[in-house]
Amino acid sequence: MDTLVAYKEHLREIGKLESAVSLLGWDQRTNLPRKGHPARAEVIGKLTKMVFELSVSDKLGEYLSELESRDSLSQVEQASVRVVGKAYRRHKAIPPAFYEEYAVAAARSETAWEEAKEKSDFSLFKEHLERMVDYARKFAEYYGYKDSPYDALIEEFEPGMTSTELKTIIAPLREELVPFIKRLMQEGKRPDDTFMRGTFPDDVQRALSLKALEAMNYDFDAGRLDPTVHPFTTTIGPGDVRITTRFLPHNILSGLASSMHEGGHALYDQGIPDELRWSGLDEGASFGIHESQSRTWENLVGRSRSFWKFFAPIAGEIIPQLSSASAEDLYRAANIVEPSLVRVEADEVTYNLHIMLRFELEEGLITGKTNVADLPELWRDAMKRYLGVVPEDDAHGVLQDVHWSSGLFGYFPSYMLGNLYSAQFFAAARKDIADFDEKIASGNLSDLLSWLRKNIHQYGKMYEPKELIERVTGEKPDPSYFVRYIVDKYTDVYDLH
Amino acid sequence: MDTLVAYKEHLREIGKLESAVSLLGWDQRTNLPRKGHPARAEVIGKLTKMVFELSVSDKLGEYLSELESRDSLSQVEQASVRVVGKAYRRHKAIPPAFYEEYAVAAARSETAWEEAKEKSDFSLFKEHLERMVDYARKFAEYYGYKDSPYDALIEEFEPGMTSTELKTIIAPLREELVPFIKRLMQEGKRPDDTFMRGTFPDDVQRALSLKALEAMNYDFDAGRLDPTVHPFTTTIGPGDVRITTRFLPHNILSGLASSMHEGGHALYDQGIPDELRWSGLDEGASFGIHESQSRTWENLVGRSRSFWKFFAPIAGEIIPQLSSASAEDLYRAANIVEPSLVRVEADEVTYNLHIMLRFELEEGLITGKTNVADLPELWRDAMKRYLGVVPEDDAHGVLQDVHWSSGLFGYFPSYMLGNLYSAQFFAAARKDIADFDEKIASGNLSDLLSWLRKNIHQYGKMYEPKELIERVTGEKPDPSYFVRYIVDKYTDVYDLH
Repeated sequence: MDTLVAYKEHLREIGKLESAVSLLGWDQRTNLPRKGHPARAEVIGKLTKMVFELSVSDKLGEYLSELESRDSLSQVEQASVRVVGKAYRRHKAIPPAFYEEYAVAAARSETAWEEAKEKSDFSLFKEHLERMVDYARKFAEYYGYKDSPYDALIEEFEPGMTSTELKTIIAPLREELVPFIKRLMQEGKRPDDTFMRGTFPDDVQRALSLKALEAMNYDFDAGRLDPTVHPFTTTIGPGDVRITTRFLPHNILSGLASSMHEGGHALYDQGIPDELRWSGLDEGASFGIHESQSRTWENLVGRSRSFWKFFAPIAGEIIPQLSSASAEDLYRAANIVEPSLVRVEADEVTYNLHIMLRFELEEGLITGKTNVADLPELWRDAMKRYLGVVPEDDAHGVLQDVHWSSGLFGYFPSYMLGNLYSAQFFAAARKDIADFDEKIASGNLSDLLSWLRKNIHQYGKMYEPKELIERVTGEKPDPSYFVRYIVDKYTDVYDLH
Repeated sequence: MDTLVAYKEHLREIGKLESAVSLLGWDQRTNLPRKGHPARAEVIGKLTKMVFELSVSDKLGEYLSELESRDSLSQVEQASVRVVGKAYRRHKAIPPAFYEEYAVAAARSETAWEEAKEKSDFSLFKEHLERMVDYARKFAEYYGYKDSPYDALIEEFEPGMTSTELKTIIAPLREELVPFIKRLMQEGKRPDDTFMRGTFPDDVQRALSLKALEAMNYDFDAGRLDPTVHPFTTTIGPGDVRITTRFLPHNILSGLASSMHEGGHALYDQGIPDELRWSGLDEGASFGIHESQSRTWENLVGRSRSFWKFFAPIAGEIIPQLSSASAEDLYRAANIVEPSLVRVEADEVTYNLHIMLRFELEEGLITGKTNVADLPELWRDAMKRYLGVVPEDDAHGVLQDVHWSSGLFGYFPSYMLGNLYSAQFFAAARKDIADFDEKIASGNLSDLLSWLRKNIHQYGKMYEPKELIERVTGEKPDPSYFVRYIVDKYTDVYDLH
């Protein structure tokens, strides 16, 4: 068989097994009965191992080294070989025995974190976290890096990004946002949301989410919406990109935002063309770019004045209590800023500060500037400086997120980059699309989706984030779009004039 | 590694892949969005092939031949080696190229059958069916047999059963039932069911099914109930045995019966002990024994006078329209007999006649006594003799069932055997359990379940059907239990005295 054909066939085999793993995981979090969990873990373990073995197989290595020197490849094939080859070398860099040792330690560490969080006792987790930091530093050594070991880790989530660059991005953001939030809180006028108080059954909230997803042109023939505890989106296979969401009984906006956020992720995956399926390119360009799509729909669309102009009557029809509220009332109520302790509950203004704090701490851990033992204190200190609030216990402080417990370092910045990219993309879309706000205000969200499809989705993972951003916007990643968006919007919403 | 350990590990690997295949199949029939189907078929194909390859691997053959001569095996291990070895040899008997050729032809034949059924045009299907009969006869030659090639096929579904024995079972059944049904129709008094007419939303019907399943002690922590088009039960893995059901808007009894039928299958699988998991023994003794469990709960319990004594008030609470009906009214309405054209709509009295007809025809096809071209006429003729009704078109006649289109011959008798076994088991349970009817009438169904667990479920596939029946009832399979059950019950329900 020709090497190129064999290579593609090999990737299809991986793709099919990954599809099964995705379904097993989705089902685990939506449908699986309690007593089915132990066996499910074994089944997922088995199939994940098979995927991994195919991903590091010598056969794949041979295909890659032959194809890397071929010059007759199409553009897509070249990109596939580049992306798959890079992942192959990263996987191969890790000795299997080391990885297995790490995996066992990570499972123990996660369990310890759970207990520590429950008891709000950092001391139960400290040694495990130290071990995870050690492992992460060893991973970085195996992967290799130029300037900082942290760069080797972030590469997994945001190819081409470095800690130096992140610091350059963060500095102006911090300088602008920290004082702006203070001003908002001291001088601003908090919007009223008392008219939204009440208890809203799941089926009513689901109906509202479905209306928003329909307006977004999420394709229900290629997906579905199910409830879960921690919302996520998963691509199970071509034509099957599923959203999950969570409804809080007393907060109608939370479930709606969650559905639109996951819907944004799903639109990205639904927009990846068949040509890229099972080629190693059938996913987002990076975690940050993926997050930019979810944030676009959740915030830039879903919390915009234009969106509420057409969506207010729809909401009023589904929830009679809202029928007397104006579009402007709803828009303002959807944009309340509240410096708070917990990242996942943060609004779009304060969110990035939660990330900055985590980035600074984890970068310090990996480079050795920061000790695990000092984390709780450093956390409280940064919270005070950035957000003016201080957690009373570590459960609401340093222990709140699961990521570090399994050795996931370099992941957090993706959330922030997603916010920044989304504002930059949105500004470009606004330039390209005539009557942009009027269209959204009339419920026409398809021009925006077409723009995202054409400029971002159709390329899947063909370009690295920076290259993609330059192609789309003509500029390098620039945090000032986000700052301008936030300052303009909230100066208005909070009557700061 | 010790051969026994390696053998068990090999079976666990198969079990894990089969678990993934089961979930992929369940999801395909309950949740999968329309556009996800083509990729899903590929994923299932890939994993099914992997399971097959492991099932016929030379390694497994070596394990088996070593273990078959070992005398230190436990009883469970011996049974495992016997059952797995038998399946191994059957699989190995089929040349892979032949199987592949058959699989392609079967897929085409199923498509042709769909079209033929839709257009009610047997001629579109005739050649395909001829081909499927040819393949089935070749399968029989590969498998080998003593008396009739049909025996080689039924062996797959009902180990140890033969066509000679089936004929011995069927003869008295036919002699008793055919005239009894005529008498019922001519002299009997059809129960009234006008009080059950109406439109019943899915959520109401679901609530009713849940109550019945709870009463049956179906373990919802190890399963779930979902809607689908063609109801089925599937074991996805240990602790995960799922039921699906279908609700007809105008017929509350149909959905309830479907849920209790599938619930009966599920109780069997939920009752298989952990010791047998992933050993080749973690399924029912045969298709017929499995069907006996579904029929026990659907008919012998679910259509009994005792059941309705405790279930009538529950039904009345969920469906106010039924609250004025007596338990006796509901019992009688649940037992209306109606000779009809379509097997899947048949009541428990006429059901077996649909099966006899199919058995006689398919046995003739496989032994060469019957020509495919004559089937439509033979079908009409037999329907007239057995049930006194004749289909106006082949869609409601010979084309109604999917089985033959994919070459499934020897399967139909399982349905009938299930009915016969269920009556024989039930008679034995009645002897063993004190105050049997009173217990059911008070909603205590757990004594019956414990009896089934102890006598049937706990053994999984350790015994062949005949051995199991003798162990449980002290007798050979005997159709007279079923005949007596039917005649006694319906003589009463139809006031034939």
